[in-house]
Amino acid sequence: MRITAEQIQKENESQKEIHGFAFDYLSNTLECQGISVAAIIEQIKAFQVAIPSWALGAGGTRFGRFSFYGEPSTLSQKLEDVGVLHALTKSAGSISLHIPWDVPEDYTAIKEQAKTLGLVFDAVNSNTFQDQKGAKTSYKFGSLSSIDEASRVQAIAHNQEVISIGKKLGSKSITVWLADGANFPGQVNFQTAIQQTEKSLHQIYADLPKDWKMFIEYKPFEPNFYSTVIQDWGTSFMLANSCGKKAYTLVDLGHHLPNTNIEQIVATLMLRGKLGGFHFNDSKYGDDDLTVGSIKPYALFLIFNELVYGMANNPENPSPAWMIDASHNIKDPLEDLLQSLEAILEAYAKALLVDQLALRESQKQQDVVGCQEILQAAYRTDVRPLLAAARAKAGGCLNPIHAYRNLAVRSKLIQERGKHNVASGL
Amino acid sequence: MRITAEQIQKENESQKEIHGFAFDYLSNTLECQGISVAAIIEQIKAFQVAIPSWALGAGGTRFGRFSFYGEPSTLSQKLEDVGVLHALTKSAGSISLHIPWDVPEDYTAIKEQAKTLGLVFDAVNSNTFQDQKGAKTSYKFGSLSSIDEASRVQAIAHNQEVISIGKKLGSKSITVWLADGANFPGQVNFQTAIQQTEKSLHQIYADLPKDWKMFIEYKPFEPNFYSTVIQDWGTSFMLANSCGKKAYTLVDLGHHLPNTNIEQIVATLMLRGKLGGFHFNDSKYGDDDLTVGSIKPYALFLIFNELVYGMANNPENPSPAWMIDASHNIKDPLEDLLQSLEAILEAYAKALLVDQLALRESQKQQDVVGCQEILQAAYRTDVRPLLAAARAKAGGCLNPIHAYRNLAVRSKLIQERGKHNVASGL
Amino acid sequence: MRITAEQIQKENESQKEIHGFAFDYLSNTLECQGISVAAIIEQIKAFQVAIPSWALGAGGTRFGRFSFYGEPSTLSQKLEDVGVLHALTKSAGSISLHIPWDVPEDYTAIKEQAKTLGLVFDAVNSNTFQDQKGAKTSYKFGSLSSIDEASRVQAIAHNQEVISIGKKLGSKSITVWLADGANFPGQVNFQTAIQQTEKSLHQIYADLPKDWKMFIEYKPFEPNFYSTVIQDWGTSFMLANSCGKKAYTLVDLGHHLPNTNIEQIVATLMLRGKLGGFHFNDSKYGDDDLTVGSIKPYALFLIFNELVYGMANNPENPSPAWMIDASHNIKDPLEDLLQSLEAILEAYAKALLVDQLALRESQKQQDVVGCQEILQAAYRTDVRPLLAAARAKAGGCLNPIHAYRNLAVRSKLIQERGKHNVASGL
Amino acid sequence: MRITAEQIQKENESQKEIHGFAFDYLSNTLECQGISVAAIIEQIKAFQVAIPSWALGAGGTRFGRFSFYGEPSTLSQKLEDVGVLHALTKSAGSISLHIPWDVPEDYTAIKEQAKTLGLVFDAVNSNTFQDQKGAKTSYKFGSLSSIDEASRVQAIAHNQEVISIGKKLGSKSITVWLADGANFPGQVNFQTAIQQTEKSLHQIYADLPKDWKMFIEYKPFEPNFYSTVIQDWGTSFMLANSCGKKAYTLVDLGHHLPNTNIEQIVATLMLRGKLGGFHFNDSKYGDDDLTVGSIKPYALFLIFNELVYGMANNPENPSPAWMIDASHNIKDPLEDLLQSLEAILEAYAKALLVDQLALRESQKQQDVVGCQEILQAAYRTDVRPLLAAARAKAGGCLNPIHAYRNLAVRSKLIQERGKHNVASGL
Repeated sequence: MRITAEQIQKENESQKEIHGFAFDYLSNTLECQGISVAAIIEQIKAFQVAIPSWALGAGGTRFGRFSFYGEPSTLSQKLEDVGVLHALTKSAGSISLHIPWDVPEDYTAIKEQAKTLGLVFDAVNSNTFQDQKGAKTSYKFGSLSSIDEASRVQAIAHNQEVISIGKKLGSKSITVWLADGANFPGQVNFQTAIQQTEKSLHQIYADLPKDWKMFIEYKPFEPNFYSTVIQDWGTSFMLANSCGKKAYTLVDLGHHLPNTNIEQIVATLMLRGKLGGFHFNDSKYGDDDLTVGSIKPYALFLIFNELVYGMANNPENPSPAWMIDASHNIKDPLEDLLQSLEAILEAYAKALLVDQLALRESQKQQDVVGCQEILQAAYRTDVRPLLAAARAKAGGCLNPIHAYRNLAVRSKLIQERGKHNVASGL
Repeated sequence: MRITAEQIQKENESQKEIHGFAFDYLSNTLECQGISVAAIIEQIKAFQVAIPSWALGAGGTRFGRFSFYGEPSTLSQKLEDVGVLHALTKSAGSISLHIPWDVPEDYTAIKEQAKTLGLVFDAVNSNTFQDQKGAKTSYKFGSLSSIDEASRVQAIAHNQEVISIGKKLGSKSITVWLADGANFPGQVNFQTAIQQTEKSLHQIYADLPKDWKMFIEYKPFEPNFYSTVIQDWGTSFMLANSCGKKAYTLVDLGHHLPNTNIEQIVATLMLRGKLGGFHFNDSKYGDDDLTVGSIKPYALFLIFNELVYGMANNPENPSPAWMIDASHNIKDPLEDLLQSLEAILEAYAKALLVDQLALRESQKQQDVVGCQEILQAAYRTDVRPLLAAARAKAGGCLNPIHAYRNLAVRSKLIQERGKHNVASGL
Repeated sequence: MRITAEQIQKENESQKEIHGFAFDYLSNTLECQGISVAAIIEQIKAFQVAIPSWALGAGGTRFGRFSFYGEPSTLSQKLEDVGVLHALTKSAGSISLHIPWDVPEDYTAIKEQAKTLGLVFDAVNSNTFQDQKGAKTSYKFGSLSSIDEASRVQAIAHNQEVISIGKKLGSKSITVWLADGANFPGQVNFQTAIQQTEKSLHQIYADLPKDWKMFIEYKPFEPNFYSTVIQDWGTSFMLANSCGKKAYTLVDLGHHLPNTNIEQIVATLMLRGKLGGFHFNDSKYGDDDLTVGSIKPYALFLIFNELVYGMANNPENPSPAWMIDASHNIKDPLEDLLQSLEAILEAYAKALLVDQLALRESQKQQDVVGCQEILQAAYRTDVRPLLAAARAKAGGCLNPIHAYRNLAVRSKLIQERGKHNVASGL
Repeated sequence: MRITAEQIQKENESQKEIHGFAFDYLSNTLECQGISVAAIIEQIKAFQVAIPSWALGAGGTRFGRFSFYGEPSTLSQKLEDVGVLHALTKSAGSISLHIPWDVPEDYTAIKEQAKTLGLVFDAVNSNTFQDQKGAKTSYKFGSLSSIDEASRVQAIAHNQEVISIGKKLGSKSITVWLADGANFPGQVNFQTAIQQTEKSLHQIYADLPKDWKMFIEYKPFEPNFYSTVIQDWGTSFMLANSCGKKAYTLVDLGHHLPNTNIEQIVATLMLRGKLGGFHFNDSKYGDDDLTVGSIKPYALFLIFNELVYGMANNPENPSPAWMIDASHNIKDPLEDLLQSLEAILEAYAKALLVDQLALRESQKQQDVVGCQEILQAAYRTDVRPLLAAARAKAGGCLNPIHAYRNLAVRSKLIQERGKHNVASGL
């Protein structure tokens, strides 16, 4: 199914008055503070977040999975779903594919469909954490880091194949999430594992087209529960430096030990020009993959404060590739993603409101109370009218979730696809 | 020094216009949603938070303390400081004393001073985590839980004395924070420690006046780093039940292990009628004692959501005793407390905005997305105008920190007290 | 397959000399310290740990599962596997079934098989965290705690059925692990959830035979990532007290927040006579379900120190039901369980060596250094010869893993069952 | 006071028989396994751990400090205390000074005293986390990282002075622990802070003598509770690389977030030749500074396993500077240090027992169970007789704590120094 411009316009009609009232108040208030509302709306409008193909179906845990009706089972249906999100929000303009789950059968058709929906292909993702049917060797004990040469060779070749698929689709980057590690002390020689990983990454990097980037993700634990080869940003950063200029660190919000100060990591990476990719989600305990902003919205704001600062002050750091990486265990995946998109843009908008000059001055004065007042003044502002305005200006919905429900999108998807359609992949 | 009604009125004049504009917008918006703004303002106005006497000077860490100028060094000066906070905010209407740091020399004078400042005496606090000069026995290895009878006897007597001091001042509760525990495995027999603690608490409880309450605080670690006798709410709740009806659990936000779901603990305690006291602060790592709302404001909102629900639905649970328990290591303590008061009332106001009926309905529908939308709609609302209005209506300041700085309170305190005045206690 | 007494005797022959040398040294040394080696060996011999039926196949994570060859797929094959473990170790004398995965088709045959293998049926386990095919209602949003009456009714009936199955097998207890909770703030009303859970447990409890126990498990997170209804020992303890004398708390080592002092929880529960069940595993991050003793063997020893103390000093606390609850993601499940059994008995034996009288005396002297020396003296002792001696005396193997490999058990199981046999359940 | 060779010999006489029995058994057993006991004893003998001058008095927490009698108050008395430890153990052959607490008045006398006691001067430590009396500027808001130039200049000069003091004493390294950070979001600009730190370190590094090393310590939190400039090994490693070849990362066991895999960090740093210093202690919650090995002895063993591997396989990594960095809040500091030394050598000895060849082979076979068996076989060995033998061979005590108590060292120190001597510094 596709959502038409007419449908959106009709939806917006019903929200227009209440939005106008709120927007007028907010823009007056902000303009009085010397903030250009128009400029901020343009920045919000320009912010595009990739949707990963695997996030369109229901997720689960090791204890099971409760299915959701009307899930997409083909790459084309996945594009269709992202198309719905983009039509409603105008901020989900790209899709991130996972290989081997999403190998296109007909590249031309897929590219054509994406174009029609206004979507581009973001980073492609490799998978060496599962064995595929018919695989010559297993990744049970590791892939790029493995002590077993056959596993490494297979994993390198797989990553190279992912690049070649991405090239055909117009992707410009590959994300390597290396799940390798150990469940028990002694299982793996740490030094050997990191050395093998480094060599393997060099080989993949050697295959990288000139205008591509390689994102190296890190994660402290899961699916391995004693050690993970690329356990933290320090390891990823070290490997990215070893690979070369086109290699970057990728930060996933859920991939940190308890209490980690993530915003400081972001700042350090941007200072060094090495923040390449960013995966959004939220969590309370581990890599919980919950809706963005559902648990720690202030932490998200503080992170965006560093991102906004870095984008303005670190020209050598490329614009990071943004993606939502969440798992939808009990919510409708599309509604969940709409909530995530809203939370991302909210944090971004609030960060844009931070009075950077005043903050700098208060920092110089070592006025800690003043610094906090400045940050909190931005955070406490209700920016929902700005997001709605930016969406509407771009042709999207003032209130996407309301529209999604009003247009009965899920029922229509079930009608088209049936209840027990199963998403490929997880 | 004292802040006069005229000073406040003058301060408010300068903020009037901008406040009026914001308040009109917000109250219109809320009234359209069927919310009675007047009722909410009354609830905010009525919310009073105790200031502990030890929070008026600079705090520190085991690595040292950077002093702050103009700190209060007598109980009278401490009352004066709380008087400043209350004059500005009209929400700091009580003081919580710590014995032996705050034993009044002249009860009548102190009570008279408090009355003039509009302050009452909240829970009194005992101290068995430090040795006092001339003490017969040491608490180095424990107090109420000690294997050493002399330590227990001394600690029980101290708590009883604290009650008797509190009685003279009009306090109606005692807070027992028991720092006892062990730094090393084997140091303490857990079963003996809990049994001795239970007996000791029974003896203190036996001395409790009829209209008093006893609050039993819990904390997982610090100053002991292997075990703490009352390590969690479960232990506190068990002991409170063992003591009797007047014994309650006290929740301090900083006293939990990483990732604890505190709001659920709050809900459980209120359901059982056993939430007696509440200490506000914020933290990222341990018992960091930072400004309320400076790190996890959304968690604070979720906790207030449970408090508001409990206050409406659990008539058997008494209204909890609210107190700020923070440490001001680098901020002006009074400014820090003003920021904390603002954050507390903000979270409370937002919780009051939650549409409880709609939430209940969405929960019944198992509409998880809808539930989140309802909570976040309340949280995303900018409630600052409500707080300002409530303060002004009560005779306080529209913008307390602005007024505090404008009135040069700290300079005047330094003038009166000198730079190197040292707060008693920590 | 079955391991014969002859096979074991032959295996032991090869280990006899080296064992004898080590045992003589150790027993001489211990006897010199006034320890009765014979008594300790009897205690080790008597310690029996249940094996859960679901731990005999390969486990996995939400990212996938690497299968293991020769897994059992029927209840009879599962009994056979536990029979192998018991034959080798003489310490795995019971099996814990999971319903609906293990409903016997022929009760008489299954009971007969168990008897032949020297096995009894330990606690039976219900499952309301997954939907079964053809179920009338889903547990997606909860079971015993659900706001939906139909879900509660179905879950209660299921637990009652589990009891009735257990009765036919000779089980004497049911373990309720309630996975219910919420992934998002607002999704669930905490007070309602705990009230419904309490009511549901009362109904199950009402069905409990007179000589049965009910174990209430707690867990802070997973599979829910915002809240869990029975999140900690305090909640479980409160519910167990509410149910009655036959209800107890069950401690699973992996079900705690980071840094929790588990041994203190154990001591408190035993003091109150409420520690009913105990699940062994090890973990570094969350509920990692690793081999017992593979990550924190000293913590395990400290826990056993409390268990040994409690078993000696808390007559009102029944002997807890011991079970291994681990997940075998990359090891041969049977080898993994052999390692776990060894680690459990090692910790138990070391705890038995603690000089309780000297410890008590050092505690009284507040000699913290001395207390630590006493605990560590026991812990540093190499007790492997004691475990081997106890096993041999009971008719088991001196060196179970060596024997398991020497007897090529896994190859034989693969021969009998084929490579791609799939374990029922997880 | 000084302990004489005669006293030690006499002490050893009383322990000789029991030690001989245990040693014979163990060395026979190990030799049978192909292990050269003599070689291992030589390695243990050669392992020397520095004692920091500040660890000789009682430590405390922000809640207070319970003093200990007979503490050293001068540098000479501190040397004397380390001399006692070294006489008893022959493994505490160096002292690490803290400036400004330990500035010698008479360098020749101090060096002479050290020589007599068999002590050398290990890394010198700077202090920019406290203000010294008469300091021109405060470190309240930072030192090397400060936005305030005067603070940076003063802090750099202080570090340079520490180097010059160290040069006079024969030290060859400086440890920079930078406590700088922020208590609140917004207080500090992360990028500026790291840039200023980098520049400041460059200036200190420029002053470093050719044969010196600079150790850069990291820590996630405390005394700052929102952010720390050098928050993790990644940041330290980045800065060390930026400084140059003589700059290294220093690992303190207590300076990690919950659940960090420290042994992997150690392995990575040694692989890159950048592990310069190592601070021993133990902890359960934060930087608890407890006795080494008192909480997580297996983790310590796993860390030593990497250290032993790195020392054998990473020739480009210099031998790390070992130091105990613990706080003695309730134990006699000297007894506490004796327990720490024992735990360090125990972990080292066990790591030396690991069959590296067999482990490598099992890793190649991906025999996870076998790998664990190899590590645990080493860990389960009771190596106390090896430590005693190594000590005795070096002229130290078979049983240091026993000797310390038997010789009534503390009473003599109190006699000499009085009860209320106060250690300088913390």
